[in-house]
Amino acid sequence: MDDLISRAEALARHSDSAEHYTRTYLTPAHQAAARQLGDWMREAGMEVRVDAVGNVIGRYDAASSPRGAQSPQSPGAQVLLMGSHFDSVRNGGKYDGVLGVLVPIACVAELNRRGERLPFALEVVGFADEEGARYQTSFLASKAMIHGAEAMRPLLERVDAQGVRFDDAMRAAGLDPARTDEARIDPARLAAYVEVHIEQGPVLLNAGRPLGVVTSIASGGRHLVRVFGEAGHAGTVPMGVRRDAMAAVAEMVLAVEARATALGGVGTVGLVNVKDGTGNVIPGEVEFTIDMRAGDDATRAAIEDAVRADIEAIARRRGVRVESSRRHDVSAAPCAGWIQDQLEAAARRAGADPIRLPSGAGHDAMVFAEVTDVGMLFVRCGAGGVSHNPAETITAGDGALAERALLEFLRGFRTPGG
Amino acid sequence: MDDLISRAEALARHSDSAEHYTRTYLTPAHQAAARQLGDWMREAGMEVRVDAVGNVIGRYDAASSPRGAQSPQSPGAQVLLMGSHFDSVRNGGKYDGVLGVLVPIACVAELNRRGERLPFALEVVGFADEEGARYQTSFLASKAMIHGAEAMRPLLERVDAQGVRFDDAMRAAGLDPARTDEARIDPARLAAYVEVHIEQGPVLLNAGRPLGVVTSIASGGRHLVRVFGEAGHAGTVPMGVRRDAMAAVAEMVLAVEARATALGGVGTVGLVNVKDGTGNVIPGEVEFTIDMRAGDDATRAAIEDAVRADIEAIARRRGVRVESSRRHDVSAAPCAGWIQDQLEAAARRAGADPIRLPSGAGHDAMVFAEVTDVGMLFVRCGAGGVSHNPAETITAGDGALAERALLEFLRGFRTPGG
Repeated sequence: MDDLISRAEALARHSDSAEHYTRTYLTPAHQAAARQLGDWMREAGMEVRVDAVGNVIGRYDAASSPRGAQSPQSPGAQVLLMGSHFDSVRNGGKYDGVLGVLVPIACVAELNRRGERLPFALEVVGFADEEGARYQTSFLASKAMIHGAEAMRPLLERVDAQGVRFDDAMRAAGLDPARTDEARIDPARLAAYVEVHIEQGPVLLNAGRPLGVVTSIASGGRHLVRVFGEAGHAGTVPMGVRRDAMAAVAEMVLAVEARATALGGVGTVGLVNVKDGTGNVIPGEVEFTIDMRAGDDATRAAIEDAVRADIEAIARRRGVRVESSRRHDVSAAPCAGWIQDQLEAAARRAGADPIRLPSGAGHDAMVFAEVTDVGMLFVRCGAGGVSHNPAETITAGDGALAERALLEFLRGFRTPGG
Repeated sequence: MDDLISRAEALARHSDSAEHYTRTYLTPAHQAAARQLGDWMREAGMEVRVDAVGNVIGRYDAASSPRGAQSPQSPGAQVLLMGSHFDSVRNGGKYDGVLGVLVPIACVAELNRRGERLPFALEVVGFADEEGARYQTSFLASKAMIHGAEAMRPLLERVDAQGVRFDDAMRAAGLDPARTDEARIDPARLAAYVEVHIEQGPVLLNAGRPLGVVTSIASGGRHLVRVFGEAGHAGTVPMGVRRDAMAAVAEMVLAVEARATALGGVGTVGLVNVKDGTGNVIPGEVEFTIDMRAGDDATRAAIEDAVRADIEAIARRRGVRVESSRRHDVSAAPCAGWIQDQLEAAARRAGADPIRLPSGAGHDAMVFAEVTDVGMLFVRCGAGGVSHNPAETITAGDGALAERALLEFLRGFRTPGG
């Protein structure tokens, strides 16, 4: 097999920035990366197309039906779709997304080298936009494959940081904004969707396991909270009569941490902004974000409810006023039990001893979960588990193990009724 | 007596900004305000000079000595110095500082109207720069009166937000940066320094008292603290392995509040800055300020020590690293007991029922406390006690009461040995 690490390194050289690895939707670097992925797909024996929104899709046809009902090239063959994204966050990591395109390509290349065909077609997709750093989108490219023009239309007039309109960026990349609906696929053709991804956290690292089988993709909610107290002179207002918005927020931050921990999810206050903050003024207004996630919707709702009640109680006790608005809300996407079982068995055949774990991060698999059964295989994240960061890394050994596990999975893949 | 309120309103029209009241050192508006104060001093029967740094000083001579040892104009007469500042913070309040110039002018005007002279000279000073908003200074003008060129020399090359050098600003206002030492006064001539000031807090308002006698000007320390944890993906790092810098800071904010409250001082975290803060990233680095004050140095030190120990314990428990640097450190300036007693007695004769209270804010009186006995009379602050804010206000009745109290104080003033 080709070396995964050197391909990831090579692909990261297609970057919008000379200083760091950043690759955003439809920039010249992004188009060059798309061409490189297409070349590797073709080398692996796939037919390659670029769809109406820039996704790069390689197809490796099914074997002839034993019953002769379908030709090898039959458009009626069921498709096992595998993929992930090849855009990045700003100053991102080389494996985030890309690993989930390179591992399937390597597996198809191996099948092709041995002349093996499977009873179903394989398609490998490099999603053109998942992080959405250029146009503040999320899961754009996979949404276009499921929802077509409906997913794209609200975005066409958006502008990026340089003032370039979304539709003009499409045209400059040779895409027609009027034809985005053509990116839509027929979900009835899908046998399943499987995504390989770097874990982006420390769970596998801490457990000493190279591979993990994802049980579900987290349910998540984001809120923006504003707390209004009373500004005042830091020297002249006695403690007993203060309505310090920052002290109230400090209690709220700890409530988020305590409730998420106790209820088995995660909760993060990532941004705190003291309005007109200065050293000698009691904060009168503070804004902060809360990100709450859990493996299932009920747990996430329980965390949100508990945090909301805590915030209200803190505000009442301290005489501050709270305004809160929801900024994001995604339901959990459970991974299909039968795919989890087959992924786990395949990983064991490949020599790994995988654990099962939820994914706290969102992935394109969430979008495909709307229309088909999905599964995810996590690869251990080095460097303490950091991701979205240049330090993000995997070992060559873990990468090779992921390739063997996915290949085993493909060879053994059977739909529940099949 | 002239109406204090209308004079404060008139003076506030000399503003650097057309939108709000802001008056900073040596701007055209500042120079116009200085001329206006000089005019009112002259009307009140004073001889007026502007010193080498722009302070406006009015003198009302002592009565002839009963023993004929000193002429009424004797340069040897003891001086009771009264004053406050006429610069402002950005978008400030009309009474902060200005009240402490206008009330003494009104008292001298009343003495002059009645042909009364006292056994000591009166001098009223409008300090040109106390807030220091233009050149990031503090107590600049009163320091120049005590320390001369030594206080000014380190500042001469500073530039303001428009790039104007400090020494050029002096020259443009007709002052000679080479002659700042001439602002220095002979402290041996001072009988005492007395400052009238709006309280800038809610203590008198909540106590229902128009006037307060200040016991001491607070001891204060400011610190800048940086906390280093570990950044991470908000969805993928389990709660148990996080080193969230913001959660650590939240505990520290509450420690400041709890320790200051328990030990009888005040403590404020006015600024919190999450480095590269964003909703879905666990904060890796957070910076915050702590302002701690108390009526005496020992209490302030006890608060600082307790907070420091708490911060270290929180950091140890959470596995985060802390860097802390002191940004400001002023000792408490006790007001002389004999001046407090005479101010309180005078306020009672004027019909008030004053309370005694510490000043949490710093004042020019702190600088004069280095060389003479000082006293301060606080006037009730309306609008909930807000200051450094356009809503800052006093009632006309409280202003008139402050004038009567200060006049009683002047008429009854005796030094401890006198």
